[in-house]
Amino acid sequence: MNCKGIVSLVGAGPGDPELLTVRALRALLDCDVLVYDRLVGAGIVDLAPPTARRIAVGKCAGNHPVPQHEINRILVDHAMRGEQVVRLKGGDPFIFGRGSEEAAELRRHGIEVRVVPGITAAQGLSASTGIPLTHRGLATGVRYVTGHRKGNEPLDLDWQSLADPETTLVVYMGLANITRIAEQLVRAGLPADTPVLAVSKATTSEETRLSMRLGQIADRALVPMLPSPVLFLIGRVAGLAQEAEAVLPQVMADLPCSAEARNG
Amino acid sequence: MNCKGIVSLVGAGPGDPELLTVRALRALLDCDVLVYDRLVGAGIVDLAPPTARRIAVGKCAGNHPVPQHEINRILVDHAMRGEQVVRLKGGDPFIFGRGSEEAAELRRHGIEVRVVPGITAAQGLSASTGIPLTHRGLATGVRYVTGHRKGNEPLDLDWQSLADPETTLVVYMGLANITRIAEQLVRAGLPADTPVLAVSKATTSEETRLSMRLGQIADRALVPMLPSPVLFLIGRVAGLAQEAEAVLPQVMADLPCSAEARNG
Repeated sequence: MNCKGIVSLVGAGPGDPELLTVRALRALLDCDVLVYDRLVGAGIVDLAPPTARRIAVGKCAGNHPVPQHEINRILVDHAMRGEQVVRLKGGDPFIFGRGSEEAAELRRHGIEVRVVPGITAAQGLSASTGIPLTHRGLATGVRYVTGHRKGNEPLDLDWQSLADPETTLVVYMGLANITRIAEQLVRAGLPADTPVLAVSKATTSEETRLSMRLGQIADRALVPMLPSPVLFLIGRVAGLAQEAEAVLPQVMADLPCSAEARNG
Repeated sequence: MNCKGIVSLVGAGPGDPELLTVRALRALLDCDVLVYDRLVGAGIVDLAPPTARRIAVGKCAGNHPVPQHEINRILVDHAMRGEQVVRLKGGDPFIFGRGSEEAAELRRHGIEVRVVPGITAAQGLSASTGIPLTHRGLATGVRYVTGHRKGNEPLDLDWQSLADPETTLVVYMGLANITRIAEQLVRAGLPADTPVLAVSKATTSEETRLSMRLGQIADRALVPMLPSPVLFLIGRVAGLAQEAEAVLPQVMADLPCSAEARNG
């Protein structure tokens, strides 16, 4: 008889609880232990039963994250006790977020793993802004990349490959490196007037959007001041943003930036 | 007073009703009219109220699809009558599938459009096979492309850009052109031993999987015989498939292929 619990690696989606899948909601409603990233919204964490143990792990600005080996240990320990564990991650557990590493570790311990996909932040953003990720004549495909390397290693992206004007480029975790990313993309041939939409806390009530051109990023001291996490959507489709500029005045008012930063 | 109905462009996800988002489910349960692609599974279509009018459009092997302008007309007509319309598409409405064209047409008529994202077939496949779309050391990003051009126009993809060994490549609608796609990728530098997983009817009860190496595709007459739709997952992560080969004998037995067809 196998008395081990099952670990479900569940995608929490972009933040709005209504964008959970039905299967994700079911897993949440039925868990004994909830291990969640700090980026997952309270509205989603609250869906777990009141009796469920809640364990916050993962990164949060100004906080030391729980190391990966410690997260693995927590998951293994609870499953070994026969508990139903939900490991909740922002977006999709198998797109960035190291879900596959956790799955491998659990399987090494003979623990059953179920994976429940989630709507990515890019998809949530696309739906809420009305900007399609593909569109005939503007983008024949879409590509997700990470703009961050472990331990601040240099970004060794294939810029030539990324500078494809027919592909929508979605940059995750790119805030710290966005100036360099924009410069390299332009150098590799992507037009400087390619539209870019930067979105902070996409699909949450604190969402702020900033639209600009690729060549302007270096000049916009504003960008690094957007609250994390920020997603960059780069490509012709971003030009279809309908209301992006409308929210700009509010962003400007909220941020402690001078007129110089605005124009410079 | 605005008596027009609202049109919701809803992602049906990869096929399993449990992979609908909560918002998508709510829209379905509450619609007057359901306009759906033939690829959307019966289990999902059945969720609409018994009183809802169901209109099948879109492609299906051997059937003439309803032309796009006719789909647009159907959506506009029903919304103008004040009905709540759900336009249901496989996967995500804003990744392939022309959702943004329908949205633009509706807005031109002053009709309110809501977009509900959906889990892509690639994400569904990733979760069900345990193959991550990104994984440290194997894939730093993921890219969706279409392997089909309107009216059988030649594929003019940027092969050099696509042949990035660090990116997981997901090819939609690539069945007819997969031999050429594989050849071009190898010619552009992607190693011939790059793992490939071809999946027919992903996440449905009729799912079949076939794993191979990129260089073998041309020799595998089997591939074009897989029932549509087929998704190709190309990249190092595909080597993490655990059970893919196990289903191969069954695929071979089910397909009406002669030895000649297999080799020819």
